[in-house]
Amino acid sequence: MSDADPTSRLRERGGRARRLREAQRPNEIVAGIVRNIPTYELLGEEGLARIEAAADVILKEIGIEFRGDEMALKLWRNAGAAVEGERVRFPPGLLRSILKTAPAAFVQRARNPARSLKIGGDGVVFAPAYGSPFVQDLDGGRRYGTLADFENFVKLTYATPWLHHSGGTVCEPVDVPVSKRHLDMVAAHLRLSDKPFMGSVTAEKRAEDSIEMARIVFGRDFVDAHCVVMGNINANSPLVYDGTMSKALRAYARANQCAVVVPFILGGAMGPVTSAGAIAQSFAETMAGCALAQLERPGAPVVFGNFLSSTALRSGAPTFGTPEPALGSLVVGQLARRLNLPLRCSGAFTSSKIPDGQAMQESTVSMLAAIQCGAHFILHSAGWLEGGLVMGYEKFVMDADFCAALHVWMRGLAVDDEALALDAFREVGPGKHFFGAAHTLAHYETAFWESAVADNNSFEQWRDEGMKDARMRAARRCKKMLAEYEPPKLDPAIDEALADFVGRRKAELPDQWV
Amino acid sequence: MSDADPTSRLRERGGRARRLREAQRPNEIVAGIVRNIPTYELLGEEGLARIEAAADVILKEIGIEFRGDEMALKLWRNAGAAVEGERVRFPPGLLRSILKTAPAAFVQRARNPARSLKIGGDGVVFAPAYGSPFVQDLDGGRRYGTLADFENFVKLTYATPWLHHSGGTVCEPVDVPVSKRHLDMVAAHLRLSDKPFMGSVTAEKRAEDSIEMARIVFGRDFVDAHCVVMGNINANSPLVYDGTMSKALRAYARANQCAVVVPFILGGAMGPVTSAGAIAQSFAETMAGCALAQLERPGAPVVFGNFLSSTALRSGAPTFGTPEPALGSLVVGQLARRLNLPLRCSGAFTSSKIPDGQAMQESTVSMLAAIQCGAHFILHSAGWLEGGLVMGYEKFVMDADFCAALHVWMRGLAVDDEALALDAFREVGPGKHFFGAAHTLAHYETAFWESAVADNNSFEQWRDEGMKDARMRAARRCKKMLAEYEPPKLDPAIDEALADFVGRRKAELPDQWV
Repeated sequence: MSDADPTSRLRERGGRARRLREAQRPNEIVAGIVRNIPTYELLGEEGLARIEAAADVILKEIGIEFRGDEMALKLWRNAGAAVEGERVRFPPGLLRSILKTAPAAFVQRARNPARSLKIGGDGVVFAPAYGSPFVQDLDGGRRYGTLADFENFVKLTYATPWLHHSGGTVCEPVDVPVSKRHLDMVAAHLRLSDKPFMGSVTAEKRAEDSIEMARIVFGRDFVDAHCVVMGNINANSPLVYDGTMSKALRAYARANQCAVVVPFILGGAMGPVTSAGAIAQSFAETMAGCALAQLERPGAPVVFGNFLSSTALRSGAPTFGTPEPALGSLVVGQLARRLNLPLRCSGAFTSSKIPDGQAMQESTVSMLAAIQCGAHFILHSAGWLEGGLVMGYEKFVMDADFCAALHVWMRGLAVDDEALALDAFREVGPGKHFFGAAHTLAHYETAFWESAVADNNSFEQWRDEGMKDARMRAARRCKKMLAEYEPPKLDPAIDEALADFVGRRKAELPDQWV
Repeated sequence: MSDADPTSRLRERGGRARRLREAQRPNEIVAGIVRNIPTYELLGEEGLARIEAAADVILKEIGIEFRGDEMALKLWRNAGAAVEGERVRFPPGLLRSILKTAPAAFVQRARNPARSLKIGGDGVVFAPAYGSPFVQDLDGGRRYGTLADFENFVKLTYATPWLHHSGGTVCEPVDVPVSKRHLDMVAAHLRLSDKPFMGSVTAEKRAEDSIEMARIVFGRDFVDAHCVVMGNINANSPLVYDGTMSKALRAYARANQCAVVVPFILGGAMGPVTSAGAIAQSFAETMAGCALAQLERPGAPVVFGNFLSSTALRSGAPTFGTPEPALGSLVVGQLARRLNLPLRCSGAFTSSKIPDGQAMQESTVSMLAAIQCGAHFILHSAGWLEGGLVMGYEKFVMDADFCAALHVWMRGLAVDDEALALDAFREVGPGKHFFGAAHTLAHYETAFWESAVADNNSFEQWRDEGMKDARMRAARRCKKMLAEYEPPKLDPAIDEALADFVGRRKAELPDQWV
């Protein structure tokens, strides 16, 4: 390290390479990750079989209620389930049998075909956080999200190659009436980005509007044959689907679009405090939701979703990045593989109010659990703060940087002659340094992943540059990304047709604020 | 969550339980972790065999230099290695054959027998960071470490149940001459703590002084029969052991004490930039060091150590928490298991100057790699900052909190009838909450790990409490721990004998500052 000549040569080469890489990034197309590392198998066959058996007992004895959705009850009755009022009980094997028509993997098409994404199999896809009413940054503090914030996060996601998917409700635009919000959100995803996206689920008609807007861009026949939009469907745990959700789910399935089915179980509230029980419950709920999509339209793409949380003893508040949900995710991954369905699991979760040490530790635990459990679609990969109440600008940039690292991670470790470098050992020998070795010069620029946010400089350099912490560096990067954003091209005729549709629907719909 | 009655009941119970747990912690004895989760197997047989074969080529063709240690060369010659000057080349299979006498697991005895630790097998042990010249906290900033700082970190480690081992050079006490430092350090470990510890390695005589001090406490015969002290031996990568290190290594082995053998390879400097080559080199170097300990005294305990780092393209500075060393650790773990030796690998590494988001993200990546690679002795589990140059007070507390989480993590996930909670589902049913369920009340207090540093409260509570970030909360906890520290009991006769030894040796030794 102390030899000036070889390192300065490397620095020079490195500096050029880095400037080049930085410049390329905003336009770079990274259409998901091809997973090249194994999953982490926590439980053996016996433990998995016991959880599956418990789920079967829950489904058969207790069942699941589908509230306010007559059609769903009819579909269940016709499929052979025992329906009593709104309670549906499932004979053992029924759901697995129905789920045989669900694809193990599918492609969600983007309006830029180069950005289409494989969901399932060896594909891994990152999408930003979803659903927070608040946003936050260093300059403005914590405040309600607006449509301008929503558009900012769509732009930031578009400018981040390591986020492959534009997500859905990247924050709630609370300055727009609830009844009309979905139109502006879907329009933003379609106009400001050309990555795959998610539509509305807060009402059946809003789901249908979202799909209709996708038809304007992709064409009606194309949409009937291909998945172009996803809807994120929450079960009302424990063991309930309300009609809003089941009807939105059926709307996506009916149009051959993807329903991501996700129970949210806060241990001790919407499920038991013990992980195995919560996993069994979640497994039962998700199987039922995915199966309902298959009854609506056999073969419709679905994603097997999961969201486990622990709770704080003192307050009952959800906690994140703790061991229990991380271990739970590993088991959920094993169960999803046995069902042969694409998995959505975990994300960059934290209960911290700011992107400090707590936030990044908790988020790192959660994201690594997602990677190691074999999740295919990882919503909430960037921006999440405060248990999901807040979308953070700096947190988004810090998380996205970790997503970049995970691209390298999932490539795994190369073990070929070039990587084993025996010639380099022969060239260098004991006690010498590798700085100037031919092997080093050939591989140096690509050997190691390098963070865009971390500071690896000396203390003195860091001090002289203002002793900035990671959040302050992220804030600067965030502003730069927004300033340099350029929208993807969109056919003016399509743009106009979208605007017409949004204008017409807004005129038809009343302003509702709840 | 909105039902006041059941949660307030839980809160009340929880509050009591938590206060109790907090109070118990400082006196709690946690003698290591019994690992109950599988390791993460990154490579298959073919990849592992290729790395082992590359190591064999390095050992046979290039060899390793043992500089300034005639006895080491003699031992190698007698064992059948090819010795040319100070270069030693190893016929294939020689080192593996010598290593057969090394124990797969052993117990390091503590002066409090309840704190003795199993090193190897299903045992996992955390120790604080090692070797930093600087210390840092919020109040005092970054400064050279002193003996007072050293003693503070021994006290903090003693007061942290989740660190099982007192470590060694927890920071450099630079106010004490280098020639005498080891005496004060070992005395601090023996007096201020009753956990297992590490001695000096910076000179053969200092290693012998360390062991002699252990003999005063444990008795000469006991020390000859049991491991009571460890020495952390660095190879001078690439492919060199200098005489200081190899003689210290042999001093520990000669006394039947444990040598932890650790090459430090900064990719592109002391080894190739490609991970597979650096791992092969490290494997060769560690095998040679561990084998030398066996030649000195067959059966002496050794720990197979490893330290991989990536580098920043711009500066050549080491980087931490990046994907490459994390993946590398997983492979090193696989190789160590095939050798059947206890493994030291990874730690809470970061290049950040302060315990911010960067620091905790990088440290979390590194620590999880240690857990998943199957490391048995994890040095640097708490306090590490700035690439090892700084021991941080707040960082120590934040890392130690994560060590607590890892205790729960390594218990794994229970899948028994109580955890599956079918009776709770029968009691609660669809759409109801689990707050008041008998199962919840029975398990709530122990169901979830709870951080002592994280803030999971509402934004409003957090704001009203001063908007403290994780580091500020850790600073408070750190001061409390130091204020409440109480030393373990030590027989006054032993205390006096230690003081006599330190006094006599200090009088004999000159003051040397380098």
